[in-house]
Amino acid sequence: MLYRLVIEETQKEANKIILKYDQEHYLRRVVRLNNGQHFIAINGKGKCWQVKLNDDGGEIVSYFEEKRELGIDVTLIVSLPKGNGFEEIVRCTTELGVNKIFPIISDRTLPKPSHNKLIRWRKIAQESAEQSERGIVPLINEPLAFHEAIIQTSSLNCPCFIAVARTTEKHIMNYLNPHQLPSRIIIATGCEGGWSDKEVENAIAHKFQPISLGKRILRAVTAPIATMALIAGISENTYS
Amino acid sequence: MLYRLVIEETQKEANKIILKYDQEHYLRRVVRLNNGQHFIAINGKGKCWQVKLNDDGGEIVSYFEEKRELGIDVTLIVSLPKGNGFEEIVRCTTELGVNKIFPIISDRTLPKPSHNKLIRWRKIAQESAEQSERGIVPLINEPLAFHEAIIQTSSLNCPCFIAVARTTEKHIMNYLNPHQLPSRIIIATGCEGGWSDKEVENAIAHKFQPISLGKRILRAVTAPIATMALIAGISENTYS
Repeated sequence: MLYRLVIEETQKEANKIILKYDQEHYLRRVVRLNNGQHFIAINGKGKCWQVKLNDDGGEIVSYFEEKRELGIDVTLIVSLPKGNGFEEIVRCTTELGVNKIFPIISDRTLPKPSHNKLIRWRKIAQESAEQSERGIVPLINEPLAFHEAIIQTSSLNCPCFIAVARTTEKHIMNYLNPHQLPSRIIIATGCEGGWSDKEVENAIAHKFQPISLGKRILRAVTAPIATMALIAGISENTYS
Repeated sequence: MLYRLVIEETQKEANKIILKYDQEHYLRRVVRLNNGQHFIAINGKGKCWQVKLNDDGGEIVSYFEEKRELGIDVTLIVSLPKGNGFEEIVRCTTELGVNKIFPIISDRTLPKPSHNKLIRWRKIAQESAEQSERGIVPLINEPLAFHEAIIQTSSLNCPCFIAVARTTEKHIMNYLNPHQLPSRIIIATGCEGGWSDKEVENAIAHKFQPISLGKRILRAVTAPIATMALIAGISENTYS
């Protein structure tokens, strides 16, 4: 399999890819490509070019579109877990096909993370997209307060869900009809202590449907990954 | 919610739970329970007792059975990933309801892990069962060569699957009819480099059905977690 590299739009000039110093260093020293060998450049928005490495950087050999995206546009609203758990969430849900993630400051999360964290999460999303052979790099939003994310996303006018633990609400699978999936979906998952009552009420007031993710109590890291696995599985299955 | 503690069968004597030194220390110093306060003791096989802490250890107040298990008995055969990835697999799949995990030495994994690793994985399974409020602690098998695990599990005479990447095989969802789930299922997922051709052929020879987990390339850590999320979701959903 050819090595994949996310590039910026400005790096493409006519039939060339202008490599940055660190990208060229990585391709030559770590991936161990020589002049004449190929790699794939992706713009993170679905466009891919097969590129031949040479002394000027890269020469575009062919263009193609990657067909690895889900038929459904999934936005996850994720209450930030303790420690480095959010990195694992970005990694796994990118592999599973998420399109956008809103990291959320909720009533029971820690203070707002540093800007360096956001840079690191975006880097992880990019690397995971490369490794999972996606043509699209998920967008990682700036961390927001939960109520702001609710207002932004509920205006998109698509099915919105909020996962709650110890609930009598129906399982999310009940709302995902494989024969009639929406084109876009938004799902919010909570942090370790769960959502506060006020947060759930606020989400419901903005047309978020509360749902269950099963009978067991999932950690803040597991909940969005399990959710994304379910949506991807239903979206890619044909029940043929 | 009451704190949960896995105990050994021998710790239950008539209407008492005889606590070990470290368990009592944990309950009193970390969970900060005082005499007269309650916790839940579970034997890891589905039996639960509500227990009152006192100077002799614990006095059983009531017995109950936890109703958080899946209707399907899932065994995962997991090719050991690099680093500490297997810990995350044990943690997440326990929360999602797995019953047994076979850590596997495959053609492309590292040498057999130390016995201390196995002890650590079993401890993680126990803690994750406590936290996710399960009554059953999944069994973590001794690490085995893949062909030995295939022979052991294929003799159980239930549907067996092997997940392969870059395949034209059908998605696993095609084989999981929500209205007709088997009582037991076995699924094998590979390590970073994927299975060798010989391994896949050997599995097929033992009636393992090759399946896809979707169009993107999942890491060795993500594959078993996504698989378990799918099975749990289908098992717990009623499509009502």
